[in-house]
Amino acid sequence: MLKKFVYGQPIPTEAVIEDISLSQEAVPYLTVQTDKEGKMTFSSTLNDEDIVYGLGEAPRGINKRGHIYESFNSDDPYHTEEKRSLYGSHNFIVVSGKTSYGIFVDCGAQVTFDIGYTVYDRLAITPSVKDFVLYIIEGDNAYDIIRQFRRVIGQSYIAPFWAFGFQQCRWSYYTADEVREVVRQYREHQIPIDAVYLDIDYMEAYKDFTVSEERFPHFKAFVEEMKAQHIHLVPIIDAGVKIEDGYDVYEEGKAKGYFCKRKDGTDFVAGVWPGRTHFPDFLNPEVRRWFGHQYQTLLEAGIEGFWNDMNEPAMFYTDEGIAEAVDYLKNFDFSCNDSNKFFELGGRVGGLANRRKDYAAMYHTINGESVCHEQVHNLYGYNMTRAAAEAFQALVPDKRILLFSRSSYIGMHRYGGLWTGDNQSWWSHLLLNIKMMPSLNMCGFLYCGADLGGFGANSTRDLVLRWLAFGLFTPLMRNHSALGTRHQECYAFGDTEAFRGLVSLRYRLIPYLYREYIKACEQNEMLFKPLAFAYPQDKIACHIEDQLLLSDDLMIAPVYEQNAIGRTVYLPEEMRFVLFKGAEVVRSERLPKGHHFITVGLDEVPVFIRPGRQIPLCEPSESVDQLDTDTVTYLSFD
Amino acid sequence: MLKKFVYGQPIPTEAVIEDISLSQEAVPYLTVQTDKEGKMTFSSTLNDEDIVYGLGEAPRGINKRGHIYESFNSDDPYHTEEKRSLYGSHNFIVVSGKTSYGIFVDCGAQVTFDIGYTVYDRLAITPSVKDFVLYIIEGDNAYDIIRQFRRVIGQSYIAPFWAFGFQQCRWSYYTADEVREVVRQYREHQIPIDAVYLDIDYMEAYKDFTVSEERFPHFKAFVEEMKAQHIHLVPIIDAGVKIEDGYDVYEEGKAKGYFCKRKDGTDFVAGVWPGRTHFPDFLNPEVRRWFGHQYQTLLEAGIEGFWNDMNEPAMFYTDEGIAEAVDYLKNFDFSCNDSNKFFELGGRVGGLANRRKDYAAMYHTINGESVCHEQVHNLYGYNMTRAAAEAFQALVPDKRILLFSRSSYIGMHRYGGLWTGDNQSWWSHLLLNIKMMPSLNMCGFLYCGADLGGFGANSTRDLVLRWLAFGLFTPLMRNHSALGTRHQECYAFGDTEAFRGLVSLRYRLIPYLYREYIKACEQNEMLFKPLAFAYPQDKIACHIEDQLLLSDDLMIAPVYEQNAIGRTVYLPEEMRFVLFKGAEVVRSERLPKGHHFITVGLDEVPVFIRPGRQIPLCEPSESVDQLDTDTVTYLSFD
Repeated sequence: MLKKFVYGQPIPTEAVIEDISLSQEAVPYLTVQTDKEGKMTFSSTLNDEDIVYGLGEAPRGINKRGHIYESFNSDDPYHTEEKRSLYGSHNFIVVSGKTSYGIFVDCGAQVTFDIGYTVYDRLAITPSVKDFVLYIIEGDNAYDIIRQFRRVIGQSYIAPFWAFGFQQCRWSYYTADEVREVVRQYREHQIPIDAVYLDIDYMEAYKDFTVSEERFPHFKAFVEEMKAQHIHLVPIIDAGVKIEDGYDVYEEGKAKGYFCKRKDGTDFVAGVWPGRTHFPDFLNPEVRRWFGHQYQTLLEAGIEGFWNDMNEPAMFYTDEGIAEAVDYLKNFDFSCNDSNKFFELGGRVGGLANRRKDYAAMYHTINGESVCHEQVHNLYGYNMTRAAAEAFQALVPDKRILLFSRSSYIGMHRYGGLWTGDNQSWWSHLLLNIKMMPSLNMCGFLYCGADLGGFGANSTRDLVLRWLAFGLFTPLMRNHSALGTRHQECYAFGDTEAFRGLVSLRYRLIPYLYREYIKACEQNEMLFKPLAFAYPQDKIACHIEDQLLLSDDLMIAPVYEQNAIGRTVYLPEEMRFVLFKGAEVVRSERLPKGHHFITVGLDEVPVFIRPGRQIPLCEPSESVDQLDTDTVTYLSFD
Repeated sequence: MLKKFVYGQPIPTEAVIEDISLSQEAVPYLTVQTDKEGKMTFSSTLNDEDIVYGLGEAPRGINKRGHIYESFNSDDPYHTEEKRSLYGSHNFIVVSGKTSYGIFVDCGAQVTFDIGYTVYDRLAITPSVKDFVLYIIEGDNAYDIIRQFRRVIGQSYIAPFWAFGFQQCRWSYYTADEVREVVRQYREHQIPIDAVYLDIDYMEAYKDFTVSEERFPHFKAFVEEMKAQHIHLVPIIDAGVKIEDGYDVYEEGKAKGYFCKRKDGTDFVAGVWPGRTHFPDFLNPEVRRWFGHQYQTLLEAGIEGFWNDMNEPAMFYTDEGIAEAVDYLKNFDFSCNDSNKFFELGGRVGGLANRRKDYAAMYHTINGESVCHEQVHNLYGYNMTRAAAEAFQALVPDKRILLFSRSSYIGMHRYGGLWTGDNQSWWSHLLLNIKMMPSLNMCGFLYCGADLGGFGANSTRDLVLRWLAFGLFTPLMRNHSALGTRHQECYAFGDTEAFRGLVSLRYRLIPYLYREYIKACEQNEMLFKPLAFAYPQDKIACHIEDQLLLSDDLMIAPVYEQNAIGRTVYLPEEMRFVLFKGAEVVRSERLPKGHHFITVGLDEVPVFIRPGRQIPLCEPSESVDQLDTDTVTYLSFD
């Protein structure tokens, strides 16, 4: 049961696609307060036993209590605990306790969720604007509420089958030969792989929809050559369009007025990878159509997958920001003797990126009206990805194209998946990855994954192995690392046997995972669920954040601590414990309800099969194309 | 059995105070390699089951495997996983496996410990200089090796009894009235407390050994007034001496040539809190005597405790650094269109602090010879604290003075304790605190603790409570938070009952804790031990990093996850589980060996009493002075 409340004159987000009539009653569950500036706060008291789920790609736990979150899509690679915003804004929460209810704040501007942070037992939600839609969702329990929500926001994007293969990325493989070498290494070591990514350096001067002829000559033939080896190339597309005379996308966009504006109507400028760029006004359907059709160039070259990046949008600097810094420097007294002034100096000159001031100076045209970017900030990446997906629908209606985005908003889940952005090679980010998956699923994002092994900072062999051992369950299974960090491809640490084993196990599971994934998309289910949803009466299970249910069949319990020889697992009921060493089962036994310590080597993966359940396993292969999905054996509880 | 190997002509650190004759044999256990520049690397193969202990105040786990550490004392408040250096350098490790041995690299310059980071099964230790002493310690097991090491480095500093009371700090309580208000709140809420700290703002313009007359008038009387309320005031002392004509410490230090030099013999200048300062040359015994005697001013005012800070030494900027930035800015083309240039700009202008280049430009005078600071960097804070401790010995020989430091090196443990520096209000830093305690103990640091509740970032009620529930076992039990963050005093979150209970429990434990602490100091024992040291045959126990043994009597198992209702605990043998709700026992039962889930409320503390052991508990009081330590009850296993 959804109740809809409209405040002011909200800009439609198209997050909810079902027609829901306005509720005539007062907002249930929440106390509504309006401050003297008209800003509204919706609050309630949290009972000790209440768990608050949701918020999709937000930091911290499955239970979101005890922190304050600000939905404002942010390009911030340091996902430390105190952060309030990451790349996506997913304003859906469920308060689950004696009474359970869901809340969705549908608003493209910033929304603050204070979930027992300021006051331990108080939930307070404050949109930064006066125009928004509030939905209250009532149901039998948390999962029922989530499924109702999922139904009204529409079916999740379905990725192609090959996109469940293992994928390798790096910022960057600079040349076709570097890509060939990656593929050669994987094939030589018989580690399965289906895709290699092209990060920003495949382009000519970072210009969208171009390919460097010097570094990737005869691109179409190269794509073909890779496909012959069962490898998909997946290029990145950035939001900003380079300002450069003669560059067709820029010229056409400019001529047609397709870029975001300054207040004075001139095209807004921000520096990103290509230097100064314009941002396409993705909130305008005509611009979406235009930009989406640009992907055609790459589709024609045989490309079948894309990742949309930098679409918060990230801004490294603006002319206005630089001018302010120059002004500040002009007046800075370098002979002064005040430490605080030097701290300020660092901030002023080093803080040119992603300034709220710059976002506030950018304008969209929505239904002919000029709208400040701050009002719709969280919808930008969503609509970039929608642009691509709608174009694919028109251009290649019979083909599933891989598509996922860094920035997102609920609604985008119908058009593509997401990866969780620029994480770090930290063990705590492996745990964050585990905790984030069910939250993302609640908000409709099913084709998701983190940069396995960690993007920033240097990884180690054991971290990559432990992360793969979890990542092999996530729809997007991609190893990715940043410029300047240690290489972490599966062959980069010498001995490859453990890597081959883990990736091969993924391939054995693909028929099962893809089937369950499709089912979750079509039936508005979650692929990853907290244990609480299946064992609501079990208090211990309800508070476990490092074990997940995969579909209805399995429980997984990844090892996420360095130097651990295994871990303690809690079984809320009798289950069959199956231990894989690489792709092979080396142990299988029923374990009773309760706590168990299980030893798990770096090359091992434990799974727990629930009573009455079974899962199919096929034989491993080097690519998804080569999988024999018809010949399966079953792992079953019995 | 210690074996000593000397390379080159090391600068004496006085870390080891026992006379050990040079070993005539080859270095055992390690392979020695010398590169073409004469840099030496000591390496060995790590077996799968080897655990590597040690490194004192270093990031990550009790088992240090899988990371690379660089001993180079660093003022870095972001203790994230990839960091290699924190405030202290404690170059002692123990490889514990089929064969066990200890290694101590005695060297004031940077030393790198690659513990299975570059190559998974390889330990490699590389001093950055050619002059150092290497000790190899052989023994029956890890703990035997540690005790031998502890014996040769001399007995650990013993803090006064009152320093086991609860202590409150904030950057800053700006006035005497603010301090009075803190005390009033604690007393009014009947939360025990023994000390309030004075952070940098108590001074006049950040000048060491001054007190602002405006903000702390009649300081001696104020100290007396606080003492009448059983409160000790603990002022901070920073390493840098403000350059200001008429300031006696500066004038005398300058006249006598007591400050560190530039290469050209002029006094080295760096900007810190007071603006431009000189750094006393603490490596010179005459300077130590002089600086140590400056504390007399505050001793005379009745002060009985100090914390030494900024003694890595931290440098915010130097004239040379500023000149380089100005030069760089002169040539910077702000109209350029290259993102990388703008990233560089931020780094160049924002990166003025703690530059290696500046450290390399500073010189000490050791036995009449000029020595580059880089050679002795890690000894600086150590010798500042030694300066104070030696002066206290001369000035107040019959009194125990509280003294601890931010920066440290092994050897300093004889002169003072340490706190673990500027951590963050992160749950992961509570866990880091737990893991760090045994490592610090191994290296001789027993009077230690972290900033409870976290220094940087905003804390929450539950984080402060959970952190107190661990901190009540650590010798230094201090709540501290940074300027600009949320207040986190025990009365800052409304309801104070849970806080009162936890702090009162500390006071009930003080007679026991202080006794065990003294015993550990006198007998070269560890107060906090990994379970492995008591249960070496128990593989599960050997890899547990979130439970500790406290002395030989107790096992503790803190809750360190937000929203957890309790935790799983592993008992390596039958123990008595005692649950305190605040200061009172609410549950007591024997639990068998194995895994147990225990429910632990925010106001509760679990302890586990080992077979045959008992611990005394006294009645709580509002200050240590008022404790009746003669009237105790016992909690016993039986």
